Amino acid sequence: MIIILDETVTEEQIKHVADKVAQLGLQTSISRGTYRTVIGVIGDETKLQSAPLAAIPGVAEVLPVMPAYKLASKQAHPKPTIIEVGPVKIGGGHLAMIAGPCAVESPERMESIAKSVRAAGANIFRGGAFKPRTSPYSFQGLGEEGLKILRDVGARHGMPVVTEVVDPRHVDLVCEYADMIQLGARNMQNFVLLTEVGRTNKPVLMKRGMSATVQDFLMSAEYIMAQGNSNVVLCERGVKGFDPATRNTFDVALVPQIHKLSHLPIIVDPSHATGRPELIPACALAGVAAGADGVHIEVHDKPEEAMSDGPQALLPQQYAELMDQIRKVAAAVGKQIG
Amino acid sequence: MIIILDETVTEEQIKHVADKVAQLGLQTSISRGTYRTVIGVIGDETKLQSAPLAAIPGVAEVLPVMPAYKLASKQAHPKPTIIEVGPVKIGGGHLAMIAGPCAVESPERMESIAKSVRAAGANIFRGGAFKPRTSPYSFQGLGEEGLKILRDVGARHGMPVVTEVVDPRHVDLVCEYADMIQLGARNMQNFVLLTEVGRTNKPVLMKRGMSATVQDFLMSAEYIMAQGNSNVVLCERGVKGFDPATRNTFDVALVPQIHKLSHLPIIVDPSHATGRPELIPACALAGVAAGADGVHIEVHDKPEEAMSDGPQALLPQQYAELMDQIRKVAAAVGKQIG
Amino acid sequence: MIIILDETVTEEQIKHVADKVAQLGLQTSISRGTYRTVIGVIGDETKLQSAPLAAIPGVAEVLPVMPAYKLASKQAHPKPTIIEVGPVKIGGGHLAMIAGPCAVESPERMESIAKSVRAAGANIFRGGAFKPRTSPYSFQGLGEEGLKILRDVGARHGMPVVTEVVDPRHVDLVCEYADMIQLGARNMQNFVLLTEVGRTNKPVLMKRGMSATVQDFLMSAEYIMAQGNSNVVLCERGVKGFDPATRNTFDVALVPQIHKLSHLPIIVDPSHATGRPELIPACALAGVAAGADGVHIEVHDKPEEAMSDGPQALLPQQYAELMDQIRKVAAAVGKQIG
Amino acid sequence: MIIILDETVTEEQIKHVADKVAQLGLQTSISRGTYRTVIGVIGDETKLQSAPLAAIPGVAEVLPVMPAYKLASKQAHPKPTIIEVGPVKIGGGHLAMIAGPCAVESPERMESIAKSVRAAGANIFRGGAFKPRTSPYSFQGLGEEGLKILRDVGARHGMPVVTEVVDPRHVDLVCEYADMIQLGARNMQNFVLLTEVGRTNKPVLMKRGMSATVQDFLMSAEYIMAQGNSNVVLCERGVKGFDPATRNTFDVALVPQIHKLSHLPIIVDPSHATGRPELIPACALAGVAAGADGVHIEVHDKPEEAMSDGPQALLPQQYAELMDQIRKVAAAVGKQIG
Repeated sequence: MIIILDETVTEEQIKHVADKVAQLGLQTSISRGTYRTVIGVIGDETKLQSAPLAAIPGVAEVLPVMPAYKLASKQAHPKPTIIEVGPVKIGGGHLAMIAGPCAVESPERMESIAKSVRAAGANIFRGGAFKPRTSPYSFQGLGEEGLKILRDVGARHGMPVVTEVVDPRHVDLVCEYADMIQLGARNMQNFVLLTEVGRTNKPVLMKRGMSATVQDFLMSAEYIMAQGNSNVVLCERGVKGFDPATRNTFDVALVPQIHKLSHLPIIVDPSHATGRPELIPACALAGVAAGADGVHIEVHDKPEEAMSDGPQALLPQQYAELMDQIRKVAAAVGKQIG
Repeated sequence: MIIILDETVTEEQIKHVADKVAQLGLQTSISRGTYRTVIGVIGDETKLQSAPLAAIPGVAEVLPVMPAYKLASKQAHPKPTIIEVGPVKIGGGHLAMIAGPCAVESPERMESIAKSVRAAGANIFRGGAFKPRTSPYSFQGLGEEGLKILRDVGARHGMPVVTEVVDPRHVDLVCEYADMIQLGARNMQNFVLLTEVGRTNKPVLMKRGMSATVQDFLMSAEYIMAQGNSNVVLCERGVKGFDPATRNTFDVALVPQIHKLSHLPIIVDPSHATGRPELIPACALAGVAAGADGVHIEVHDKPEEAMSDGPQALLPQQYAELMDQIRKVAAAVGKQIG
Repeated sequence: MIIILDETVTEEQIKHVADKVAQLGLQTSISRGTYRTVIGVIGDETKLQSAPLAAIPGVAEVLPVMPAYKLASKQAHPKPTIIEVGPVKIGGGHLAMIAGPCAVESPERMESIAKSVRAAGANIFRGGAFKPRTSPYSFQGLGEEGLKILRDVGARHGMPVVTEVVDPRHVDLVCEYADMIQLGARNMQNFVLLTEVGRTNKPVLMKRGMSATVQDFLMSAEYIMAQGNSNVVLCERGVKGFDPATRNTFDVALVPQIHKLSHLPIIVDPSHATGRPELIPACALAGVAAGADGVHIEVHDKPEEAMSDGPQALLPQQYAELMDQIRKVAAAVGKQIG
Repeated sequence: MIIILDETVTEEQIKHVADKVAQLGLQTSISRGTYRTVIGVIGDETKLQSAPLAAIPGVAEVLPVMPAYKLASKQAHPKPTIIEVGPVKIGGGHLAMIAGPCAVESPERMESIAKSVRAAGANIFRGGAFKPRTSPYSFQGLGEEGLKILRDVGARHGMPVVTEVVDPRHVDLVCEYADMIQLGARNMQNFVLLTEVGRTNKPVLMKRGMSATVQDFLMSAEYIMAQGNSNVVLCERGVKGFDPATRNTFDVALVPQIHKLSHLPIIVDPSHATGRPELIPACALAGVAAGADGVHIEVHDKPEEAMSDGPQALLPQQYAELMDQIRKVAAAVGKQIG
């Protein structure tokens, strides 16, 4: 940690800061520059976590040198982690191909979508039974009935299933049916929910919050891991941008950033990142080329009857064509599906 | 609602869209322009809420004409709503002056802060007992013990109290002690929590999410109101911006926007919006001048020992000076405190 | 300057960095932390301006301690600068009230607008003769003819005039007619134009770029000042945001930030910041309450016939009412107009 | 164009708007909804370009249905345009591989960089002779001397050259030496410069502004094309984002957006988009997979001695390795270099 002092700092103030650091069992190294004095802190930075040094008079800025996450960091685990969801591997060269409708709908609809995405090469089936909708008047999902449909259809087609949990009181219920639990973008900093999910040992698919920095994102993974659950797969799904032409801005550079900072796998979700079907294929391929460990795509065979997010779904035929292209780009960067 | 069709739309597709709208019991008016055809939908738009018209082939864009919120809208209630928190009025010319430390700390510390902010003119006392921290290793709050301290100290100084709830399972507990419940920025789209809070009749202080549009914000208010709780006070606390020089960007224009669209009161929180004490007074005054119905400020008498967010707190003396200025600006725009 | 080294840095690399710094005539102070080594640089940082230390292997990050601007900084000139535009003072407690149409139009139209804004209390008259339009097919301004009209009408009503320059080849021409030169947001980093304007001694009104940080903004002021022209007035006019509900996000916190970092005056332009007349008055008052040194407002008496930006203009009557409120808020914060 | 009226609009106001439209020689179609009335405008929208309908009382919003650019649109030219820069083709399946240092430096340095990037497969050589630096105290480029060095070194290695122009007075000079002219991000809305460049027939490489929407970007291309120069290659180089971890946010989805809206080629510049060498290869591959028509990379063989932007340059060896990967991904998506 580096403590930059005000230009007008007094000797007394410098001493006060240094004493404060010493009380916490850390050493200091003071550099007196021509314009500014800087205090380097030597030792275990985590001891300073709760010490508001920046509030001390004379302190201009406090710069951490170590990231605040540990379990999620590459330092803790230099090799890429491979997460297993049923028979599917994610990370370390293995790609998850997650597909399915936004919301779980009727068994017949789910059956027909599952069949087509499986044939195209998807290896994990998705569908929401509890939907976090921005309007209280929109369809909120089928609940437990939806979980059953999802599990049964997935099983029939040999695909493990992933579904979102939105309520800490439902975590056990969702774990009964799902092979992987999804945490939505709007819940990325719902620390109560992160903590409950961390107490299970289910693989977790955590979407990036709409304005989360890479540090925020890894801190949320740390929350889950600090409870004992290390099976976290990250997912870039677009961040807020200034151009209303797309729903969000697809931040593909997050993929190499996460691979540099963390051992956790990261996949991409171009469906939510762009919100427009005609942009999804290009962004899916971009994600794979950038090193993503999987692709999450919403697919629906009757988008105009979809109960949620129909306008952004790919048709089964479009998904199958995209999967052909994904296979080629994956081969070009030395990855395999599953 | 206006449905803009693709340039290449066929007559068959136009008929298909119009039929779909008619099935929902609405009328259409088709304008065939030189380059584009546009369908106006006549009738109650809410019938279209779950119809993904944008997914129909030939449809380029669907533009709603009515906002998706109703209870929160000015149409529903043209006069400004005045919310009462104990003896304090918020809205319609009455200003809430909410002050206190970020987290509830020891009874002695709370006592001393309460005394000073009360003397300066604060009328609602704040403090967090359940803290949503970005790090799992940071202080998470004193829990129920903190709620007791807050209530007792507030009562002793004649101030109703506001405190944050982060867990849907704690809503009843928090309601027992608090006069007003706070929903934090990170939970603005935690729809499970919004729904639970909507089932109480406590006044709610809802902070704006870090990247919530004005429409998102009012939709979250609608969630609470749709459950029966109309006592919602909105709070602008800064949105994500591109300049790391401030923690967030203080979006003061939200104040007149909310006043134009909604009858709900809106206050400002310059402490979180800027994250820097030297910018707080100017932004507080800006908020009042822009018509805000109150100001939320973090105050601590020993910031360097604060258990959370010390570096952004004002000192009691700074708060007292700011309150003097606020009184002058409030008078200039015809508002009174409380 | 602080140089943070990689965790895996070698002794040889540390030595190489330190030698590089020494070659430039500066001293180093090395702190070896438990996890990271940090080099503090002692001496005149500007010597490092062109040395890409961050490119040296083993260097993780280079953090400047001093801002890169000097002439614009408060260190260079601790007291607020007061800029004089004809008889009008800007800064140090004096407010500029700049008003007029977006583009210079006919002499009759200009006459009528000037008369009304002068009566309302405006002290500087504005209008664009060279318009930087986003479409090549839009009205580009009246050119020199517009400059003449502006000057003559301003003179008749006792107001100095400000107008935009967009071409470095027109700087002399514009200086002949105008009392103050405006640099538009899109030209804030047009360094060629900044340099030309810096060679004159005309007061300059520089608008903030749409995504300029406070540091970027002051660096652009430095460009002008480095050429010898210190008469720079800054103007906040909104930055790009994620909510399409307003044209831009009005960043009122920039006002106290500039006052903390620089001696230059800063005014606000709520017309461009919001793009919506119903939000302009609240934002204008917010700016004055936050300490702005003036307000820039577009006024037109026939907005539906305006040749540019009509929809965001205030009507003369609305401007007069706003001026009444501005006078009250200005008095509350101890400022006077002009 | 669609004109949405206020809920409180009067019949008189509706008539006034319709008359205004009729005066311009266009027809209207009025839809009276339950809550809102909407006027569809039929005919050539460009006639409305300068009519500020939104300023008419009773008008809530004016929505254009056609984009404001024409020459740049796909409607004008449905097939992808192929731009030729010397022997190099850009667009329609042909990839430009532009490489070189940020600034032109000594002939020896340029010689050595050119040799290595040519061997790796680059087909256009870059280097800045006029540098738009954010600090007036930084190196501003070698000027005409730099242009000569660039041209000679490029010629010796069989590569056409691209270099930036920043001053409208230098356009002819730069055209004498360069095969392609670059317009920098900060000048994307420098309409004076766009106009001058549009008067030449040189191929233009136009970088996207830091906060330009896709519509803004294409409007700037339209500026150049409206003067007669249709040889415009667009370049995505990152937009402003909220996470200081990268210099900018690489908006890869712009590539399929441009291909949908325009016939112009678009390349990507991951060097400026990320500002960090370790993220450049992944983003370059992402761009190619997304369908970009080329990649622009800064390469320097002695980054720590670079006169500009050294820290973000790739080393020649890194560039050669990246080119090997680019060739594989390009083959996977059916593209060829040059």
